[in-house]
Amino acid sequence: MVQTTSGAGTRLRTFERAVSVRIAESALALSGVLDLEQLHGWLAARKRQEVFDVRRVAFDEMRKWSRASETGNYAHESGKFFSVEGLSVAVSGGPVKEWSQPILNQPEVGILGILVKEFDGVLHCLMQAKMEPGNAGGVQLSPTVQATRSNYTQVHKGRTVPYLEYFRDTGGHRVLADVLQSEQGSWFYRKRNRNMVVEVSSDVEVLDGFCWITVGQLHRLLAEYDVINMDTRTVLSCLPFSAAGIASLFSFGGDDFQSSVIRSLSEDNGSLHSAGDVLSWITECRVGNDVATKLIPLAETTGWRLGDDVIEHETGAFFDVIAVEVSAGNREVHGWCQPMISPHGTGLVAVLVKRISGVLHVLVNARVEPGYLDVIELAPTVQCAPENYEHLPPEARPAYLDDVLEAPPDAIRYDTVLSEEGGRFFQAQNRYLVIEVGDDEHEDVRQDFRWLTVHQLTALIRHSHYVNVQARSLVSCLHSLSFAAPGGLG
Amino acid sequence: MVQTTSGAGTRLRTFERAVSVRIAESALALSGVLDLEQLHGWLAARKRQEVFDVRRVAFDEMRKWSRASETGNYAHESGKFFSVEGLSVAVSGGPVKEWSQPILNQPEVGILGILVKEFDGVLHCLMQAKMEPGNAGGVQLSPTVQATRSNYTQVHKGRTVPYLEYFRDTGGHRVLADVLQSEQGSWFYRKRNRNMVVEVSSDVEVLDGFCWITVGQLHRLLAEYDVINMDTRTVLSCLPFSAAGIASLFSFGGDDFQSSVIRSLSEDNGSLHSAGDVLSWITECRVGNDVATKLIPLAETTGWRLGDDVIEHETGAFFDVIAVEVSAGNREVHGWCQPMISPHGTGLVAVLVKRISGVLHVLVNARVEPGYLDVIELAPTVQCAPENYEHLPPEARPAYLDDVLEAPPDAIRYDTVLSEEGGRFFQAQNRYLVIEVGDDEHEDVRQDFRWLTVHQLTALIRHSHYVNVQARSLVSCLHSLSFAAPGGLG
Repeated sequence: MVQTTSGAGTRLRTFERAVSVRIAESALALSGVLDLEQLHGWLAARKRQEVFDVRRVAFDEMRKWSRASETGNYAHESGKFFSVEGLSVAVSGGPVKEWSQPILNQPEVGILGILVKEFDGVLHCLMQAKMEPGNAGGVQLSPTVQATRSNYTQVHKGRTVPYLEYFRDTGGHRVLADVLQSEQGSWFYRKRNRNMVVEVSSDVEVLDGFCWITVGQLHRLLAEYDVINMDTRTVLSCLPFSAAGIASLFSFGGDDFQSSVIRSLSEDNGSLHSAGDVLSWITECRVGNDVATKLIPLAETTGWRLGDDVIEHETGAFFDVIAVEVSAGNREVHGWCQPMISPHGTGLVAVLVKRISGVLHVLVNARVEPGYLDVIELAPTVQCAPENYEHLPPEARPAYLDDVLEAPPDAIRYDTVLSEEGGRFFQAQNRYLVIEVGDDEHEDVRQDFRWLTVHQLTALIRHSHYVNVQARSLVSCLHSLSFAAPGGLG
Repeated sequence: MVQTTSGAGTRLRTFERAVSVRIAESALALSGVLDLEQLHGWLAARKRQEVFDVRRVAFDEMRKWSRASETGNYAHESGKFFSVEGLSVAVSGGPVKEWSQPILNQPEVGILGILVKEFDGVLHCLMQAKMEPGNAGGVQLSPTVQATRSNYTQVHKGRTVPYLEYFRDTGGHRVLADVLQSEQGSWFYRKRNRNMVVEVSSDVEVLDGFCWITVGQLHRLLAEYDVINMDTRTVLSCLPFSAAGIASLFSFGGDDFQSSVIRSLSEDNGSLHSAGDVLSWITECRVGNDVATKLIPLAETTGWRLGDDVIEHETGAFFDVIAVEVSAGNREVHGWCQPMISPHGTGLVAVLVKRISGVLHVLVNARVEPGYLDVIELAPTVQCAPENYEHLPPEARPAYLDDVLEAPPDAIRYDTVLSEEGGRFFQAQNRYLVIEVGDDEHEDVRQDFRWLTVHQLTALIRHSHYVNVQARSLVSCLHSLSFAAPGGLG
């Protein structure tokens, strides 16, 4: 599988187009080990079997969690997992320059890993139908492994994490993606997970609750509400998804939307800005924003009411911190308590896209969030909970929000409600939108916005600190609009 | 100069080989606006003209600097520039797991910028012959602009920084490199500078102390002791240096060392590890090392003697912090005081290299330094002050140190003493070495080492947090061994 240079006896590897071709082939496959109908049947059965009870409790009712008397922080008795602390923030831009807030501090790096394997020549992903306490709609499709280090070093003395060994020791397997990526920078302090895709060629036992699914099937399910969970979306976005080398598989010479997405997957078709100019713009945005953050005791946050069963902002905006008790059937442990972040209302996560010379470009925003390690990350055009702006002046209204809210129906290319991480966030749903605008619209954009191709985003996602978790979700959504068209190509 | 796709009316840019060809052409030019003899004459004249007096003083004699009574930290009265604080460090690997130390805290991002321009079709760099108080040998060649934000926002009310406008507003110019890079992670807390190369086509006035120099001339001077300063070396390493497209300029079909360096500049010639495997290894090293750092009051560091005119380790090892008074001729201000770090002895910065299937590979080390923002950066094979290991047990001796110290003379491909940043470090000299080993040596390396091509390092240097400042210097040295051979090709 590895191409080598032509010299005799060489040990060197050269650029491998083969991987992206195999991913494209899997994206074209709407049928695999299971067909779509069987897949839906399996998911429905899992939803019936996974019986969870999630109940709100008071903070002092959380077993194994306690509040430190000096700081007011909430922490697990093991000192592991995560804690709820305070963060003070000072930024140079934006309508609000200084604030403090509760934040989840989870310094340990977890693993989000998808195991892939070929069946009949087509790559399949081993997915788990998994319930998380915060999930809207119950069970969602999660990666093969989704584990904090505390999980897999078994702090809670539960069962071992299945399939973990493929990701902890990749020797003998083929690593298709492996990168540390940030998560919600407004709710997590510098949290990162290791996003991995590992290909195995040996036999793999399929445990109860797991299923082999093609990329095309995952893309199809990504059009449904609350089926593909956040961890799956971010790991999928890290795949070396490309149109390079697939010309023989697929004709995309047209001037339709789908062809523009496929062209946008390949560097060869060009981009409005060169790769160097994009990196320079990111550097400029990092230097141009001063962000000072400091972990503080939760008790010292200002503007937040620290109640017995809820921590909430005085204005009622943003989010609450709550406590839940979970009774679970088949998890590593048979029930637990934990704090969760419960955001208000359904958020809006949207990109404007347009075809420039036939190549799809995405309007991204260099966005400051206090939990980022390196000042800014590229975010969707609009990422907000519209409710949060009600008590702020009109000039604080997010840029391009009206373009999104007033988009005509025939400009909407993707529109699905998806959940954020159900292990930390309670019923955190966002409406994810891809909205096409005319080639002549928004030619001049603000300094903190740029039109990039999907390929440029995919290239940045190979590295840490560049593309935020919401934008990575939308990259997966855009990938789903490329090869697997509604109506079926598989 | 910008290539576009062939479609009519396209506004898109595609991958530009032209830049690397033009850089290679400049690297081949040993004669430019000046020839080498004129250049040496100009440098010698600058050394005579730049009259500095650097004198050690006691800490309380430093004008405009003071010691905070509570913390013992030293800071400038403006609150700008940098401060001397303490850092407590706990790491999971290495012979010493916990320590504290003095550290320079310089949160503001400075600009290191080289302005380039074509003369007679050959790119030239506008270099400054500049004296810094810590420089060994007096004047060294520095980038066009080398300025902290405090410098260029004129905290010290001195003269304006010449040529700064080309880097603060790049509109209308062409940006060849623009990336935030770390500096010494053992002496600086998360310091980063913006490394920039900007091409201008309009006329540029050449001020006193500045000179247009080809890349080939800079490479030639890089073989001399203490001529090319650290800031120049790091900025040069950020150039998109490549052998792509230069086959027509240069024949490199041989099995000699130089041909292996040139082959190593191009992705097309392959590498021992794929790009994806290298990124996965870096991710693994980041996850596998726990590093906890915390700024503490300088007065609370343990194992350090805080004297009136020196801060030194109890063992006499590592480095001192000292205070100097500088009397300068033509700097932005006419004299100042500042603290400096004064390391002990000449350090050793060396890479082992070898030809694998005719392509040069460099043995790099994923190294933890407490000042890095993201756990590890790729460092040379060996980077140490041998003296510092004298009070540590033998197993603490750096890996591969003996390969470097015992290398036969004919294996040494580069051997020059170069200074580190003379604005913060006093007489900090390292011996930079490139040492070739046989193809069959060190096939199995430790988990924290890998054999990479020069191209792979150059690709990583486009991004932050990957390649440390010592390794970036050596990448520039390796570049200097590619096109411009001793004996002259220009």
